[in-house]
Amino acid sequence: MLTDGPPPGVHAAWLPAEAFHAVGSRRVMVHGAGSLVDTVREEVVAACARHGGRLGGRGRGADLVLALRGVGPPPVPAARAALARAQGVAGDGLGGEGFLLVRADGVTVVLADAPAGLLYGLFYVVRLGEAAFTGDLPVARHRPATALRMLDHWDNVDVHPVMGQVERGYAGGSIFWRAGAARGDTARVRAYGRLLAACGVNAVAVNNVNVHATEARLLTDRLGEVAAIADVLRPYGVRVHLSVGFASSVALGGLPTADPADERVRAWWAATTRAVYALIPDFGGYVVKADSEGQPGPFAYGRDHADGANVLAEALAPHGGVVHWRAFVYDHRQDWRDRSTDRARAAYDHFAPLDGRFRDNVVLQVKCGPIDFQAREPVSPVIAAMPATRVAVEVQVTQEYTGQQRHVCYLGPCWSEVLRFAPWGPDGPTVAAITARGGLVGVSNVGDDPFWTGHPLAQANLYAFGRLAWDPTLAPRTVLDEWISLTFPPGTTAHPALVRRTLHEVMDDSWRTYERYTAPLGVGFMVRPGDHYGPDVDGYEYTPWGTYHFADRDGVGVDRTRATGTGFTGQYPEPWREVYESRERCPDELLLFFHHVPYGHVLHSGSTVIQHIYDTHFAGVAEVEATCRRWRRLSGLVDPVLHARVTERLAEQVRCAREWRDQVNAYFHRKSGVPDAGGRQIH
Amino acid sequence: MLTDGPPPGVHAAWLPAEAFHAVGSRRVMVHGAGSLVDTVREEVVAACARHGGRLGGRGRGADLVLALRGVGPPPVPAARAALARAQGVAGDGLGGEGFLLVRADGVTVVLADAPAGLLYGLFYVVRLGEAAFTGDLPVARHRPATALRMLDHWDNVDVHPVMGQVERGYAGGSIFWRAGAARGDTARVRAYGRLLAACGVNAVAVNNVNVHATEARLLTDRLGEVAAIADVLRPYGVRVHLSVGFASSVALGGLPTADPADERVRAWWAATTRAVYALIPDFGGYVVKADSEGQPGPFAYGRDHADGANVLAEALAPHGGVVHWRAFVYDHRQDWRDRSTDRARAAYDHFAPLDGRFRDNVVLQVKCGPIDFQAREPVSPVIAAMPATRVAVEVQVTQEYTGQQRHVCYLGPCWSEVLRFAPWGPDGPTVAAITARGGLVGVSNVGDDPFWTGHPLAQANLYAFGRLAWDPTLAPRTVLDEWISLTFPPGTTAHPALVRRTLHEVMDDSWRTYERYTAPLGVGFMVRPGDHYGPDVDGYEYTPWGTYHFADRDGVGVDRTRATGTGFTGQYPEPWREVYESRERCPDELLLFFHHVPYGHVLHSGSTVIQHIYDTHFAGVAEVEATCRRWRRLSGLVDPVLHARVTERLAEQVRCAREWRDQVNAYFHRKSGVPDAGGRQIH
Repeated sequence: MLTDGPPPGVHAAWLPAEAFHAVGSRRVMVHGAGSLVDTVREEVVAACARHGGRLGGRGRGADLVLALRGVGPPPVPAARAALARAQGVAGDGLGGEGFLLVRADGVTVVLADAPAGLLYGLFYVVRLGEAAFTGDLPVARHRPATALRMLDHWDNVDVHPVMGQVERGYAGGSIFWRAGAARGDTARVRAYGRLLAACGVNAVAVNNVNVHATEARLLTDRLGEVAAIADVLRPYGVRVHLSVGFASSVALGGLPTADPADERVRAWWAATTRAVYALIPDFGGYVVKADSEGQPGPFAYGRDHADGANVLAEALAPHGGVVHWRAFVYDHRQDWRDRSTDRARAAYDHFAPLDGRFRDNVVLQVKCGPIDFQAREPVSPVIAAMPATRVAVEVQVTQEYTGQQRHVCYLGPCWSEVLRFAPWGPDGPTVAAITARGGLVGVSNVGDDPFWTGHPLAQANLYAFGRLAWDPTLAPRTVLDEWISLTFPPGTTAHPALVRRTLHEVMDDSWRTYERYTAPLGVGFMVRPGDHYGPDVDGYEYTPWGTYHFADRDGVGVDRTRATGTGFTGQYPEPWREVYESRERCPDELLLFFHHVPYGHVLHSGSTVIQHIYDTHFAGVAEVEATCRRWRRLSGLVDPVLHARVTERLAEQVRCAREWRDQVNAYFHRKSGVPDAGGRQIH
Repeated sequence: MLTDGPPPGVHAAWLPAEAFHAVGSRRVMVHGAGSLVDTVREEVVAACARHGGRLGGRGRGADLVLALRGVGPPPVPAARAALARAQGVAGDGLGGEGFLLVRADGVTVVLADAPAGLLYGLFYVVRLGEAAFTGDLPVARHRPATALRMLDHWDNVDVHPVMGQVERGYAGGSIFWRAGAARGDTARVRAYGRLLAACGVNAVAVNNVNVHATEARLLTDRLGEVAAIADVLRPYGVRVHLSVGFASSVALGGLPTADPADERVRAWWAATTRAVYALIPDFGGYVVKADSEGQPGPFAYGRDHADGANVLAEALAPHGGVVHWRAFVYDHRQDWRDRSTDRARAAYDHFAPLDGRFRDNVVLQVKCGPIDFQAREPVSPVIAAMPATRVAVEVQVTQEYTGQQRHVCYLGPCWSEVLRFAPWGPDGPTVAAITARGGLVGVSNVGDDPFWTGHPLAQANLYAFGRLAWDPTLAPRTVLDEWISLTFPPGTTAHPALVRRTLHEVMDDSWRTYERYTAPLGVGFMVRPGDHYGPDVDGYEYTPWGTYHFADRDGVGVDRTRATGTGFTGQYPEPWREVYESRERCPDELLLFFHHVPYGHVLHSGSTVIQHIYDTHFAGVAEVEATCRRWRRLSGLVDPVLHARVTERLAEQVRCAREWRDQVNAYFHRKSGVPDAGGRQIH
């Protein structure tokens, strides 16, 4: 059983053997039964075998006790004090995944109501390291903020002629599929499941939301391949979901229709779903991209998205499954001449009127921003608009628009801002609270690359996704610190403090650095069409995709106000509908998302828009250059292969950042005619 | 034998059966021997079988005599008067392809020195139709202006993952290759050869100048596939050429080098070429794209293009073959920030210093303009810069930058302007005269489409290419008129005059119409990168391809003057070096190619640059809309399938022209801030 690391040649990410030193050198007792408890035991056994501890049996002493409640207290006298404290606190239930940690009288105790909690508790203790075994620790309850913490893999079974094996994948091939078939590489998938459990992810959709012909068949005659993946991920508490085509009843079922009101369609989904659960009893559910970018949907039958989602939900309900229905619906054949249509409005316009119409086991999956994973967008107004609907926020771990894993771009701060955003102002609930019933979904950045994520430092995004899904109140810097401690543990480097400090310097602010040298002030979409890498300021300006900046010789930005623009600001509740509406109150970083302003407009920062563009682009590149210098310090202090990989990517990041700086600055200089106050070179 | 038309389902183009009515209803005598004379006989037999004439034997009367000189006068008493006249005039030789036409005493006589001349003479008579048999005709000698009239097929053997079966092909697949192998469709290739002979083309390169791995092998182990094509084209006087990779001695020969100075390399080319001629005795030669857009070349060995070309020429010389060495060499990894590098200069800078260094059987193949087949460019200065070199002009029949056979764009006027251009002013030789020793080369627009060229009216470009190669003094309108007469002969339409008039209205000025609604005033390259279809004004502006317009809020255009720009104007001899240098004297249509001017600059036309941009873009679209209305008149008057195909393409042309108009106008309006004097809508 492979519980002690990834397959040969694959990087251990945040679970190197050294990270288990504190646990593995202790006497550990695991108390309880069940498949996930077995996983806990295997982890402990493997760690102890390496580090000299032992998994204890009944009646022996223990430094660490991992126990399920309800099977009677473990017979470890020394643990009694800790347990006594714990029991009182945990009285109101820990849930299926929660756990309680307490340390007293030299014994650390993890208590859970269900096996998954024990597994998460173990990895929590691993993260704490020696701190878990030092002095006393107060009783602390840990429960995930949301039950659904899912990664969507945009992996194709067949290699797509344009999009490849993984759509928007920047880490090699898929860990699940290769050239038309399941890879059957259980070791890699198992190692993946282990990494997910260790950061808190509990669900995976194994195929692309754009469901092509081959992938469609995963639902029926190729279901066995999905079941095989589920079998491998199950020991780590990760459930498998499947992206399905809305028109499956036609494409697979041979029915003449996919109309959700048609009894035959409902019966087909019910029967098909029964068959899925017969093979995969803990199957998570379906992910659906309908009536979006060419995918079929309920509109073809004169039905709405609630009708569409509910027919699948009805089929899943008896089995406890969930439909993830994506809200990414907009007109991608827009006429750029038409200034009244605003892509930012689309999801709200489509879905807000449907609030209350979705079944309980429908989760509306809403991209975090109203457009499409730009480095900077406002939070989607849909999230606050559907109180009677379970809403999940979708973020993009794969760096489609944020440097494609060739650039260092730690996204923890970005997601944290989204999760902490309070749509009704500081006294109201946060996005994290609103979406607790729905969940947090990330588009996976993982591939068959030896480092999992192409750019080794992009592993931190995968880790942070899981951690923030579990606890959205965590500070991104804290999460990064955890990741550094685990990935570069003390035993692996001569200068752990320097490594830690350098990685913080390189990564903490890297998202804002990326923002600085790319599209300014929230205007978005200045990437090259198609591959979305590198700058092309006008690349989308006259296209049907609905993403424009309207730069002319006088100014730039999109007027989305109610007063004079598309009215998008009206989709927000107070106070944001007024804050965004006001050119004066709108936050600088979103100014051009909401307003078309003259180049001379003065920002809150005191700078003009045009000077801000120049300044941030020069500054962003300077920061990347500094990053390169800092990274050089780590030569010889971290794994040389990892160091070389990052070095190579940094060279490309510098090149690309300069390209962004020079194109964006030249573009706006040519348009505005305003010279740089700093007299720096603009081409 | 298939001489009476194309295979079933394939359009007859300019050789419908009806076009042979005049010849086929006569008594015809063919006098001479040889393979091409047999072709002439077969043509006559087929035509007579259909139209009631007959191929006569000795001693019978004749209306048309086609005779080789030197085999004794044909025993047709009535032809004697014509022959007597003819002999005197033709005394100085007609060459291998020339012929003499005379009509006296009711007999039309075609006289040639070689069989090919007889074939061209026959098709000339076909073109004349009844006029060849009416009254007397003065003695007229016909000789091609140049011996080499070649079509380059950018056809791939393997389907290229990006470029497809035919690179820049807009007429379906290749007529030679399909999915990795020769198609073996001899009927189609034969019909193609027949069309070529009927318009005067005598050479074909059967594979893409970008020679990929599979195509490279056509030179050696897959030579048989080339020989099979040669066998089919030979009866129409069309020789086969092959595009080869410069590094073939490495890729195919297993040598460690392709250095042209290396004896092993020379020996390899000599032996390989011998083997080619053993199989294809009339093989035409090699086409080479070296050190260009990633193709290998002599630079890798510290050699220049003369060294490179000569090693291949040396191998071909004993067999009478020719190397077509393309002058399309430039830096396609240019830094857009670098304003001193000018792609327009590249071919001259590379090749002019080499004048006199090329062997006699090297033809330097120079694109007609200095950049790349834009709708409007000045004539390449290389043509006038190499008096001691055989220079061929390359034009693009396939409409890569001129509407991709979705737009009507009759290119005869464009090529005619090039061929008539006089680099040293009106008293000096024309491009046609300078390149007579080299030839005219066209990139083929033909594919396996039923209409050969996708857009049925694009057949006229293929026809015009051949005719202008044969006789560059022909007026484009005359050539088009010939094409109309042949393609829509009287017997096929109830209103031939209306058809003729309409086609002239639709096509005569269509190139200038295309120019009007696309990139203005010679500035070029405002197409979408990659596919080169439709507008993207800034698409190439910040790329490494070296094609920029430098539009800013004040003006637009590329300063290529010696005084303040890249100095490109200095590559021209007088008078053009001064005409182009001068902002005042430079022709309007090339102004932005040579000068960066303010939007308010007043053209010779009296309009400002910015108003010219608006006006031409509105006018161009209006002209396309008028074209649609005119084409509608022909409904029911021409082949309905052809009519429908053109109608469908016109709809796309209107859509695309409007897109060009609106994007270009919006782009320049946003930049300049100048309103349209006509108050028309700019988005």
